[in-house]
Amino acid sequence: MYGQDRVYKKVEVIGVSKGGIEAAIQAAVDKAHKTLDKLSWFEVEGIRGHVGDDGKITEYQVVLKVAFQLKD
Amino acid sequence: MYGQDRVYKKVEVIGVSKGGIEAAIQAAVDKAHKTLDKLSWFEVEGIRGHVGDDGKITEYQVVLKVAFQLKD
Amino acid sequence: MYGQDRVYKKVEVIGVSKGGIEAAIQAAVDKAHKTLDKLSWFEVEGIRGHVGDDGKITEYQVVLKVAFQLKD
Amino acid sequence: MYGQDRVYKKVEVIGVSKGGIEAAIQAAVDKAHKTLDKLSWFEVEGIRGHVGDDGKITEYQVVLKVAFQLKD
Amino acid sequence: MYGQDRVYKKVEVIGVSKGGIEAAIQAAVDKAHKTLDKLSWFEVEGIRGHVGDDGKITEYQVVLKVAFQLKD
Amino acid sequence: MYGQDRVYKKVEVIGVSKGGIEAAIQAAVDKAHKTLDKLSWFEVEGIRGHVGDDGKITEYQVVLKVAFQLKD
Amino acid sequence: MYGQDRVYKKVEVIGVSKGGIEAAIQAAVDKAHKTLDKLSWFEVEGIRGHVGDDGKITEYQVVLKVAFQLKD
Amino acid sequence: MYGQDRVYKKVEVIGVSKGGIEAAIQAAVDKAHKTLDKLSWFEVEGIRGHVGDDGKITEYQVVLKVAFQLKD
Amino acid sequence: MYGQDRVYKKVEVIGVSKGGIEAAIQAAVDKAHKTLDKLSWFEVEGIRGHVGDDGKITEYQVVLKVAFQLKD
Amino acid sequence: MYGQDRVYKKVEVIGVSKGGIEAAIQAAVDKAHKTLDKLSWFEVEGIRGHVGDDGKITEYQVVLKVAFQLKD
Amino acid sequence: MYGQDRVYKKVEVIGVSKGGIEAAIQAAVDKAHKTLDKLSWFEVEGIRGHVGDDGKITEYQVVLKVAFQLKD
Amino acid sequence: MYGQDRVYKKVEVIGVSKGGIEAAIQAAVDKAHKTLDKLSWFEVEGIRGHVGDDGKITEYQVVLKVAFQLKD
Repeated sequence: MYGQDRVYKKVEVIGVSKGGIEAAIQAAVDKAHKTLDKLSWFEVEGIRGHVGDDGKITEYQVVLKVAFQLKD
Repeated sequence: MYGQDRVYKKVEVIGVSKGGIEAAIQAAVDKAHKTLDKLSWFEVEGIRGHVGDDGKITEYQVVLKVAFQLKD
Repeated sequence: MYGQDRVYKKVEVIGVSKGGIEAAIQAAVDKAHKTLDKLSWFEVEGIRGHVGDDGKITEYQVVLKVAFQLKD
Repeated sequence: MYGQDRVYKKVEVIGVSKGGIEAAIQAAVDKAHKTLDKLSWFEVEGIRGHVGDDGKITEYQVVLKVAFQLKD
Repeated sequence: MYGQDRVYKKVEVIGVSKGGIEAAIQAAVDKAHKTLDKLSWFEVEGIRGHVGDDGKITEYQVVLKVAFQLKD
Repeated sequence: MYGQDRVYKKVEVIGVSKGGIEAAIQAAVDKAHKTLDKLSWFEVEGIRGHVGDDGKITEYQVVLKVAFQLKD
Repeated sequence: MYGQDRVYKKVEVIGVSKGGIEAAIQAAVDKAHKTLDKLSWFEVEGIRGHVGDDGKITEYQVVLKVAFQLKD
Repeated sequence: MYGQDRVYKKVEVIGVSKGGIEAAIQAAVDKAHKTLDKLSWFEVEGIRGHVGDDGKITEYQVVLKVAFQLKD
Repeated sequence: MYGQDRVYKKVEVIGVSKGGIEAAIQAAVDKAHKTLDKLSWFEVEGIRGHVGDDGKITEYQVVLKVAFQLKD
Repeated sequence: MYGQDRVYKKVEVIGVSKGGIEAAIQAAVDKAHKTLDKLSWFEVEGIRGHVGDDGKITEYQVVLKVAFQLKD
Repeated sequence: MYGQDRVYKKVEVIGVSKGGIEAAIQAAVDKAHKTLDKLSWFEVEGIRGHVGDDGKITEYQVVLKVAFQLKD
Repeated sequence: MYGQDRVYKKVEVIGVSKGGIEAAIQAAVDKAHKTLDKLSWFEVEGIRGHVGDDGKITEYQVVLKVAFQLKD
């Protein structure tokens, strides 16, 4: 594909999951893949999370950018 | 809501108002809330403004990111 | 136009062209202008590129933000 | 005071107020002044906020660092 | 004016005012407009402030860049 | 809770664990929850680690900020 | 010249040209060289541009710092 | 070892693995340990990944710096 | 010590001294070591200073983070 | 190639050319391709340049990172 | 002086000296104090240097911002 | 030398010395000059250090980039 003029769009999303960092990334990628367009790649922008009253991490919140090609 | 898998989207907007910084933020939040989706939060990215010929600030331009949940 | 309340939206795109940096920017601006909305300005976020087996640059990839006014 | 050896400590706090950015800063400064030590200055690190169901900003959240001198 | 070659200069100033953030910005813009040149725009670089012995904010210090066109 | 004035404090900690990134985060959250205060959330600032003589990662070191509400 | 004590000053300027990025840089360097002092080097800080109603780039705006030696 | 003069070198590598973030880090550390020198530590610089046609993450790409002592 | 789970805390302090940069760092480290806990390391975040009426530097102000282990 | 474990190395180089920004990039890519390894891509980190006594740009200096796969 | 409206200007300079980092800072402060205005403070932005053919540092180049009050 | 096409390489090293910041820089420059190539300049990226049990700084660790020309 290299060498052909083309354009991509990047969208910022936040995936939230109690299953860990990779699970939160996959959750965001899943949703974006369905509601936006067929994704090509992602870039992690930040990792945060919520802590419950017992001091356990109740969820991971991963900010990421997802990218897809703008087709004609 | 913590502990439930979910996905948010963040969109970058610029609110412009002569009424000050908070007014510019509210202008951008208003418009995004109507044209994009029901917002959850905002984050200020930058504050700029235009100066008139008499040296008075004629408008504030606030760059911000607004976030809303991607529903099924 | 200064002094009138208004709101802009910024979208992140990547233009790819073998014709150089300005060509990659123009490619992204062209596509965004057609598929998103009538653009007002752009901001370059990053410049990358692909290198072929012979050591020649086969394409420039320019990450940029494009901005357009959110109309009523 | 310049020219005398001394040491300051900086602490990161977040002030939350529905009254605007300055009100949120003052809220954080008030609390830190009472619970930490007599403050000397503050530095704003970030401005965020929450948006209600009606699209109105329900509160400003200002992240700031507050500084005070470490006395003997 | 777009499309005409021209050059701007940016100067970094700090406005100090007890009247709040917008007042500090306007103070810096006023002074720069009088002593440097007729300004076109400003960009906020940082927001700080001083705290009095009673925990009240005695002044806001806003670092900003102001820009003006370099005329022939 | 949104809409009520309140103040949070953020503290920077480093969790170290040979069990991976999430384990290092949970280690830091556990300790901070016990020795500082009941945490509300965390933000990852950096991920590092130590490598043993055999080229295996012996521990992950995750720098994070933890936040808790300053109560009256 | 290395090894001799000396002092340089850096000034931030924005060159605007419809002729491309290099043309915008040269425009800013030309003007600064004439109105400020004999320049030694420049550093690009940012690349932006304006888009016309037809989606064509009407001008490039390059933010740069120019440096010159402060003579006695 | 503290207190002895010594010098380290840091090299930037990208580990790619479909097994997750830690697996990608370990892959890069393994290769660098074999081809460069006996590593002392690593620092994660960025986390990216590729998405397949079915919306599943096909690989994680972790940019990291690895460090080793420059021996005499 | 590598390979054992543990947690560190980082605190931001500013050392001020007329004796130079290293003296300002040592001043901050001394005070933090006495009033906080037995420090393990420090990281310089910024270097500033005050200038007297005669143009001589009257003091160096070094912002740094100091780290110590959180013991059980 | 996606989905196969592999490792890349990134090296920072500076290309210098009087022929413009793309020429400086290609100069650095050429040299790195010959002296290091068969490159896969590049990322621009900074653009600087030297100015002659007549105010003309005598050369562009482009800082970039070049990447190549670490083979077995 | 706190509580009185006032405006400062910041100027970026580079001090060069073979005598070390503090000497380079003082050189820049000296020159700026004489040619610009009576300085109030400085902030270090970067530290670089030149290396001679024998591997010895021939000079330190410290980039700093100096600030002075804009008087009426 | 300005005006001649050429290419430099930058390498990241960490100099460690108990003798202070300049000593740590010179240590890293010495080693790189001997083991890599004849250096042209250096850039400081970060300053850290280790603290002994008695609160005294036992060593300075300066992260820097060193640059040398890639010869044919």
